[in-house]
Amino acid sequence: MNILEHISTAQNRLDSYISNYFSIPLDTDDTVKSATFYSINNGGKRLRPFLVYTVGKLLGAKESDLDVAAAAIECIHSYSLVHDDLPAMDDDDLRRGKPTCHIAYDEAQAILAGDALQTLAFEFLSVHEFSVPAKQQIKMINALAVASGLQGMVGGQALDIAATDKSITLIELERIHRLKTGALLKCAIQLGALCAPDVEESIIAALEKYGRNLGLAFQVQDDILDIEGDTAVLGKPQGSDLDNHKSTYPALLGLNGAKQKAHQLVADALLALDEIPHNTDVLAELAKYIIERDH
Amino acid sequence: MNILEHISTAQNRLDSYISNYFSIPLDTDDTVKSATFYSINNGGKRLRPFLVYTVGKLLGAKESDLDVAAAAIECIHSYSLVHDDLPAMDDDDLRRGKPTCHIAYDEAQAILAGDALQTLAFEFLSVHEFSVPAKQQIKMINALAVASGLQGMVGGQALDIAATDKSITLIELERIHRLKTGALLKCAIQLGALCAPDVEESIIAALEKYGRNLGLAFQVQDDILDIEGDTAVLGKPQGSDLDNHKSTYPALLGLNGAKQKAHQLVADALLALDEIPHNTDVLAELAKYIIERDH
Repeated sequence: MNILEHISTAQNRLDSYISNYFSIPLDTDDTVKSATFYSINNGGKRLRPFLVYTVGKLLGAKESDLDVAAAAIECIHSYSLVHDDLPAMDDDDLRRGKPTCHIAYDEAQAILAGDALQTLAFEFLSVHEFSVPAKQQIKMINALAVASGLQGMVGGQALDIAATDKSITLIELERIHRLKTGALLKCAIQLGALCAPDVEESIIAALEKYGRNLGLAFQVQDDILDIEGDTAVLGKPQGSDLDNHKSTYPALLGLNGAKQKAHQLVADALLALDEIPHNTDVLAELAKYIIERDH
Repeated sequence: MNILEHISTAQNRLDSYISNYFSIPLDTDDTVKSATFYSINNGGKRLRPFLVYTVGKLLGAKESDLDVAAAAIECIHSYSLVHDDLPAMDDDDLRRGKPTCHIAYDEAQAILAGDALQTLAFEFLSVHEFSVPAKQQIKMINALAVASGLQGMVGGQALDIAATDKSITLIELERIHRLKTGALLKCAIQLGALCAPDVEESIIAALEKYGRNLGLAFQVQDDILDIEGDTAVLGKPQGSDLDNHKSTYPALLGLNGAKQKAHQLVADALLALDEIPHNTDVLAELAKYIIERDH
């Protein structure tokens, strides 16, 4: 299988898990249920779930446990997209070529759907009986909460808002991305590892180093695509960072500088994999794919 | 101590716990941190934490464990208020006499502060080492997630929005309140009981019956106060339900009918306490206070 087939397999598995949950009758309002499912059933690449599955399988975790962890982290990622798209935030009408939740429904439903998705993440992680000890399950819940909150994703989003229309340094830009997207990517790796029994600390450290570089490479490439990409392929308007007055790597480093940076980050990610005594081919392919993708 | 002194003791204890957390330096944006603290440090009655403390102490739970559970449930309640107050939802400028979060800060910060508070609830419950077994701690997390989500608070809020400007039946109104406020009040009781070791099922059932009646009585009294109350004492404009075209108990039952209903619910709550072989005086006082309060 090539990397796109690997990604697609994980994607299908995750999508079935999510669809199954929403096919069960729920004692709730139909509109908000539909808005919530719309928000997570969004055709996303499922990069975070893919990391959970890949890292977990590498370390001997059970696939049924990984389904739950993958679904939980994707709930958090999806809720953040729904809230980020709101008029008071980025005010985006389109995501992956589809109307954003507040356009397809309305603002109130989008706020509630995002809220419900966040809760669902913690419901998934707490209702399932994992095959690892309960204390390890609590660590998963804690890792996800820390990565999502004030000192993770939400904090990064706030820093991003504060930096709009301002010129910031490379260090400040990296801090934004470390919190806004890096924390959750690192968490995907932690969740995969926590689903497995007795993983050595040195392996987790190497995986986290890989994840840190991968996350930043992903962000740099996103910034590059915003300049070079095609609106139809991107599923969102090309040039939207510039329109939104956001600081980007190409703005700070130049387009060529940003491309060099992305390559260096991928090289560092691959180097980290050398420290892991397992077959890490899929993770290596993923790192290379990150900077070759066109959307 | 009378009931107000009991409530105030729990309030102070909870407020210290929350203030302590926010006094620690956090790696995040200062504005969102401040908006988040503003949103939970809101002078609320802390009814849910009070239930956690009272039920937990009754059943022999450790107070340091109850602090954590109380803080977690108040984070959820506070986040829901911040999001409910947003322009796209109830559009309220004032809560408990203070500007709501999106007025004191702005809409983006209010969305993020609400999101951060929800995450913080699960961070609190997962970072603390409870003196009960880890499996029981996971049950707490699950109880809070279920009570907050689509089939709990968020679902109730969605039903409430769907019912605006419509005439609904008493059964539909009770379903809204069972989800919107009842689920979290029931959860407060569950959390208190889960902090204690080995509580009999029959006691939990009786406590939940008490909580169900208490929650509904609280809601009926809220509706009554919206008609009879004084804006200055309420901390929000009197008559706002009418202005917002919301269905209420006085609208469906008449003012006297609503008052009778509230008294009946309190009587049922007290009856449930008779089944509990512990000193339940404080819980009884609370039930009576619920319909005697003026704000």
